[in-house]
Amino acid sequence: MLDGPQQWRNLLKGLYVPEHFADRIIELCQKKDSRLVLGFDPVYSKLPAAIIEQKEFNDEMDCEASLDAIMEFGRKVFALVADHVVAVKINLAFFERYLWDGIDTYYSLIQEAKALGLEVITDAKRCDIGSTATAYADGLLANPSFVNMDDLAGPDAITVTPYCGIEGVEPFINVAAQQGKGVFVLVRTTNPSGADIQDFANADGKRFFEHVAEQVASWASASQLIGQSGFSSVGMVVGATKPDDLELLRERYPKMLFLVPGYGAQGGTAADCARGFNAEGLGSLVSASRAIIYAYDRPEYVEMFSGDWEASIQRAAEDMKKELNEALTARQSV
Amino acid sequence: MLDGPQQWRNLLKGLYVPEHFADRIIELCQKKDSRLVLGFDPVYSKLPAAIIEQKEFNDEMDCEASLDAIMEFGRKVFALVADHVVAVKINLAFFERYLWDGIDTYYSLIQEAKALGLEVITDAKRCDIGSTATAYADGLLANPSFVNMDDLAGPDAITVTPYCGIEGVEPFINVAAQQGKGVFVLVRTTNPSGADIQDFANADGKRFFEHVAEQVASWASASQLIGQSGFSSVGMVVGATKPDDLELLRERYPKMLFLVPGYGAQGGTAADCARGFNAEGLGSLVSASRAIIYAYDRPEYVEMFSGDWEASIQRAAEDMKKELNEALTARQSV
Repeated sequence: MLDGPQQWRNLLKGLYVPEHFADRIIELCQKKDSRLVLGFDPVYSKLPAAIIEQKEFNDEMDCEASLDAIMEFGRKVFALVADHVVAVKINLAFFERYLWDGIDTYYSLIQEAKALGLEVITDAKRCDIGSTATAYADGLLANPSFVNMDDLAGPDAITVTPYCGIEGVEPFINVAAQQGKGVFVLVRTTNPSGADIQDFANADGKRFFEHVAEQVASWASASQLIGQSGFSSVGMVVGATKPDDLELLRERYPKMLFLVPGYGAQGGTAADCARGFNAEGLGSLVSASRAIIYAYDRPEYVEMFSGDWEASIQRAAEDMKKELNEALTARQSV
Repeated sequence: MLDGPQQWRNLLKGLYVPEHFADRIIELCQKKDSRLVLGFDPVYSKLPAAIIEQKEFNDEMDCEASLDAIMEFGRKVFALVADHVVAVKINLAFFERYLWDGIDTYYSLIQEAKALGLEVITDAKRCDIGSTATAYADGLLANPSFVNMDDLAGPDAITVTPYCGIEGVEPFINVAAQQGKGVFVLVRTTNPSGADIQDFANADGKRFFEHVAEQVASWASASQLIGQSGFSSVGMVVGATKPDDLELLRERYPKMLFLVPGYGAQGGTAADCARGFNAEGLGSLVSASRAIIYAYDRPEYVEMFSGDWEASIQRAAEDMKKELNEALTARQSV
């Protein structure tokens, strides 16, 4: 099932890599004893001064200089956190911000992450139907198949929005099934005003996001999507800032992968996130973005490393991984 | 309020162009006596043989050759239909399909359409929150402000998905207000399985899409968003394939712009679309894609023009414009 680049990567490392996205994730979580994902949402003005003050990077209005700075930052950050995270979640918006050059840099960063053995999840939240959804799935999830691009890998998984029903998600599921990739469908978002949409309830008190979760669970249940781990390659996005709902959905769907954003800067705690795991301490990937990539602005690390941005980022990832594991142990021992 | 490129375009033409998106649309509809929008969703394999058989375009696996073919097709199609449509709706998926080169071509096509005096709506259906939504709004709706890109215009309007609530839409609204642009929020989609999500109803029988429409209408009602025409720069996407719902929403929201896809190939008729207009025959932009851009495959035009793809496209746009106007007259005279 695997295509060129991934097969090549596997051979190169002489390692067995499961062909199923969820199996790879579960195996990596166990091997690294980590459930943490690095969210990479780079904003130029927040990059370390040590980078943006360098002459070649020092022009926010120059598309190329900005992207070179982001690339330099990303390469270093991925290497710094690679021991502590199982995946990077790259948010496409921060590259589309830079037009065509941004997309070029985004692909370069995917290759960097993969060379470090990290899974790559593209946060794109795409939403369309029919031939449009197929074009998005081919362009954003599949490995590029154009001439001279066949050594370029696409991401391992992508996020999508379910507003259009299964017709909007199916093309992504098809690519995932063919190329050993994954799809995370947006169910419960982290932000306050998400409730204005997602809490709309029917006569039985069932809220809209619960209804969506039922739909997603049925899409995910096709036998050809289930890996040896018992998890489907189709999962859900469920925010850490709604821990009651996270726990509710975990109880209902013990064998679905959850991508859990909102840990750290958005207010979700490790204890909140721990409610998203099953009895074996598996099933969720917890994503933290700003709390890691801008750790050098957090008072505790400023003090600890007196401005060393690289040490701050590395330590923040390690601390968040451990904090999560401790919260999980505490919860399991109750 | 207008920025460089648009201001320049206005001066060049010596014309007064309203600074408000909805005002421009209403004025164009009246001036051209058209409510039709060209949906541009190009799929290489469906392009006219006369184009893809040319040596420089004849390689589907070559990213550059494919895009050159799409660019050649797009330039010609826009010019052919310019008298009959008020806007082109460019679907970004069909350009993201071609990675960074696709984005480059997409921007070139925006400039082509604008040079013809057409409004450009980017169909992107983006959906995210906070700094991510801001990055999408800056990258996809705003005019690029990077060095060496300040003569490049972004689109005039964009489509977005409301799954995350107002926090996902506000950054787009802000750019729209600052730069005289528009935002269309997805409410009712054209596809069958959309109902699995959008028909979820509360105890009073109110369906989810009606609830979303209420939210969107409240976002659109801020006084600074209302133009001289009385229409807001924030509108809704409402599919032609659900004509009862289209009429219901028009009755409820007489002064909101609707973008109405699904006319033609997806099954929506001119009579269905006519139900989306107000008493003055205004308020909706009806988009047709495949029925126009692949008109040379439609039996009636094959017969009429014996394979002349350009004549077929031009006539299809003219026919659909007229058919829509006739349906509107018929409805108004009832």
